[in-house]
Amino acid sequence: MTTITRYEIHDVRFPTSLSGDGTDAMNTDCDYSSAYVTLFTDSPDPSLVGNGMTFTIGRGNDIVCMAIREVAHRLVGKKTEVLFADMGKSWDYILADPQLRWIGPEKGVIHLASAAVDNALWDLFAKSRRKPLWKLIVDFTPEELVRSTAFRYITDAITPDEALAILKARETDKKDREAQVIAQGYPAYVTSAGWIGYSDDKVARLTKEAVQAGFNHFKMKVGADKHSDLRRGRIIRSIIDDPTYLPPGHVSPDPKSIVGKNAGPTGSVLMIDANQVWDVPQAIEYVKGLEELKPWFIEEPTAPDDILGHAAIRKALKPHGIGVATGEHAHNRIVFKQLLQAEAIDVVQIDSCRLAGVSEVLAVLLMAAKFGVPVCPHAGGVGLCEYVIHLSLIDYIAISGSIDRNVLEFVDHLHEHFVYPCSINSHGRYKVPLDPKEGYSIEMHKASIGEFEFPNGTYWKSVARK
Amino acid sequence: MTTITRYEIHDVRFPTSLSGDGTDAMNTDCDYSSAYVTLFTDSPDPSLVGNGMTFTIGRGNDIVCMAIREVAHRLVGKKTEVLFADMGKSWDYILADPQLRWIGPEKGVIHLASAAVDNALWDLFAKSRRKPLWKLIVDFTPEELVRSTAFRYITDAITPDEALAILKARETDKKDREAQVIAQGYPAYVTSAGWIGYSDDKVARLTKEAVQAGFNHFKMKVGADKHSDLRRGRIIRSIIDDPTYLPPGHVSPDPKSIVGKNAGPTGSVLMIDANQVWDVPQAIEYVKGLEELKPWFIEEPTAPDDILGHAAIRKALKPHGIGVATGEHAHNRIVFKQLLQAEAIDVVQIDSCRLAGVSEVLAVLLMAAKFGVPVCPHAGGVGLCEYVIHLSLIDYIAISGSIDRNVLEFVDHLHEHFVYPCSINSHGRYKVPLDPKEGYSIEMHKASIGEFEFPNGTYWKSVARK
Repeated sequence: MTTITRYEIHDVRFPTSLSGDGTDAMNTDCDYSSAYVTLFTDSPDPSLVGNGMTFTIGRGNDIVCMAIREVAHRLVGKKTEVLFADMGKSWDYILADPQLRWIGPEKGVIHLASAAVDNALWDLFAKSRRKPLWKLIVDFTPEELVRSTAFRYITDAITPDEALAILKARETDKKDREAQVIAQGYPAYVTSAGWIGYSDDKVARLTKEAVQAGFNHFKMKVGADKHSDLRRGRIIRSIIDDPTYLPPGHVSPDPKSIVGKNAGPTGSVLMIDANQVWDVPQAIEYVKGLEELKPWFIEEPTAPDDILGHAAIRKALKPHGIGVATGEHAHNRIVFKQLLQAEAIDVVQIDSCRLAGVSEVLAVLLMAAKFGVPVCPHAGGVGLCEYVIHLSLIDYIAISGSIDRNVLEFVDHLHEHFVYPCSINSHGRYKVPLDPKEGYSIEMHKASIGEFEFPNGTYWKSVARK
Repeated sequence: MTTITRYEIHDVRFPTSLSGDGTDAMNTDCDYSSAYVTLFTDSPDPSLVGNGMTFTIGRGNDIVCMAIREVAHRLVGKKTEVLFADMGKSWDYILADPQLRWIGPEKGVIHLASAAVDNALWDLFAKSRRKPLWKLIVDFTPEELVRSTAFRYITDAITPDEALAILKARETDKKDREAQVIAQGYPAYVTSAGWIGYSDDKVARLTKEAVQAGFNHFKMKVGADKHSDLRRGRIIRSIIDDPTYLPPGHVSPDPKSIVGKNAGPTGSVLMIDANQVWDVPQAIEYVKGLEELKPWFIEEPTAPDDILGHAAIRKALKPHGIGVATGEHAHNRIVFKQLLQAEAIDVVQIDSCRLAGVSEVLAVLLMAAKFGVPVCPHAGGVGLCEYVIHLSLIDYIAISGSIDRNVLEFVDHLHEHFVYPCSINSHGRYKVPLDPKEGYSIEMHKASIGEFEFPNGTYWKSVARK
């Protein structure tokens, strides 16, 4: 029996604040960072390690690393096969220290830390079965998948039996969907063109490049200044609606199948994202003023904890044809449960490491399927794109069976630091990860850790000397 | 102009897990702990320091201390009078680092840390004016109080103008309430008798002692085992309903003025507390089974994030005469806003350091007053009783003007570690803190820090040697 023997933690920070990448109305300077953990075992196979991480934007990454230490410590000495046999129970165990629970509970630093550890355990599980993570899970029986899910506090919205029924209904054509998505890739959208810190020229150039690359969903950051938002929005709209920029052989998607009236003449779709800058009444007024941009949805219009606020905003914007999305800061399945119960959102934007790892993500995917709301995971930062392609594949193949309105965020930053980087095909779609050794695709190059570990990596030392 | 020059942080932990104090269905072993911060200034007056803390139950207190360092650092070099002149703006500033915000936002470790720092700043402010904290704030004009309040994300529930109107309506008889509460004390309830870790004999003995001490509100922990809950509940009920145990000169409160049919024949009231152990449907079924105990409310029946769940539980228990309370884990004003908007609770249980300090507490007190829901702060642990008497005095004198249904938790643990410990008069009421030097009453004895600082205090070193 293989046993988890020790763990290693790295505080890795990339100096993205120097380039203006990742700037929005709330987050004005970000050093994309990874609180990175590796679980080691006594297996004679040296490749059998579990890598996991959570994402932060700089300061505080050390605090998360300290919390990961406390959580990872709980797994030392545990038999891997016992943990793998009931991943729902293992998730409960990871979160069950009552003293650590107090400083959450199930939120903030300690939940981010639990995410890194649960993700590392799932990575280890997938590698032990020689499958990429998504394949491990879509090959589960419905019973195995339900057993792997974090169900505490959500049974008023979905019971394990209801989840089983959903999964069983998807069984028959699971193989077809798997073959189809491997052949075609998974639909993606780009955010990289629309950061607030970029000049108009850079926005225009990046938008044209994205259209050329085959994308047809584009997201722009808003909320710092309405005139600037309208100006940049018109620039983006003018490019994505203009058939002359389309790549040869472009086939516009059926607008009815995606977002109805929000799609422009080329089938292109624009989304806007405010990163929580407004109070509820402000959000409604401001976004009404952006109606001419015909956005599919406004993302994070207000505080991520404000379920009833999102419901109020959605109701007020509905007559204007604008939906509401949130989730990258929705800190656990209980928040998503209520966003769905209150009919507060049109799109569920899970985050792969703000939710406490795969087991909690499965809970949200099951609830979203039951409530019939599409899941468009948050990505970008560092490592998130590597993670979320797995989650969207699980959602499509095994849970929702739907890909019509589901697009997966893509940001072209920092993939070079990963041993199995995500990648996009010529139709602007994520390629399906297929290497049996890649697990959850989050292994970072040793050289990247050596360079960007904070504060003693070669990069940070060289900066400190200046 | 006085300037904040540096800060000092102490990780202080009391070994309460050895005695079974503080045990409930969720928290099976607790070492009550304080993440304690002191702000120093360049004032020639050495007593002009700001002490603040947040409360945890052991492991993880070091993580909170690390986060306090990041937050306290933001105040170094700031002029105190500039900060004091607009405490709402100062609160925004304390929370405004975008990188640190990411690892909350406004929740968990980073919010607990912000609480300690904001509380320390308020302590400094009160000491600089030679007033206890409550007196500093009740002497504010309505405009000053509104300016001191954290208003972001709540203007859909209460605007600054609405808050002003509430405060102005309370102005006329503020002095009368102040004089009355100084003379009589502030109503309290005891939790110390009903911990799950105590034997039946100890529960009975402590309940009799509490009745003798003048208390008439009692709280019991439930949720681990229904038979045990009923057995212990009947023991408590049999004592508090029996007039023979009442102290000489006891005057029963008018049951109509407090909790109606939940008061027993002596006017005594029982509350029950489940510390989040149930899913929503379980909570409803379990608590119905405790109806014979006639509890005023069930506290924390489910996950603290579940606003809609609390609303569902409240609706289901209403026909059984049982109310719902929560708040000690409600992590910010946005959660309380929604609990009030959704009519989910009968009692608002603010926590003095889970909310990010006095400025955020003021926001919740103002919303509770607008919605007409009584505030019964969470206390116990270490330091919380010292804190909350100030908050309840502010609520009664300046904001709600009501004391009828407001009782303040009291637990008789660990007060000896404070320079200005809270205390209870012979009618089971909190005495009003009156020393002009005590600020927010949270200064800890240097000897206590020396003994219980973790891991290098004399107590912890002596334990490690064994």
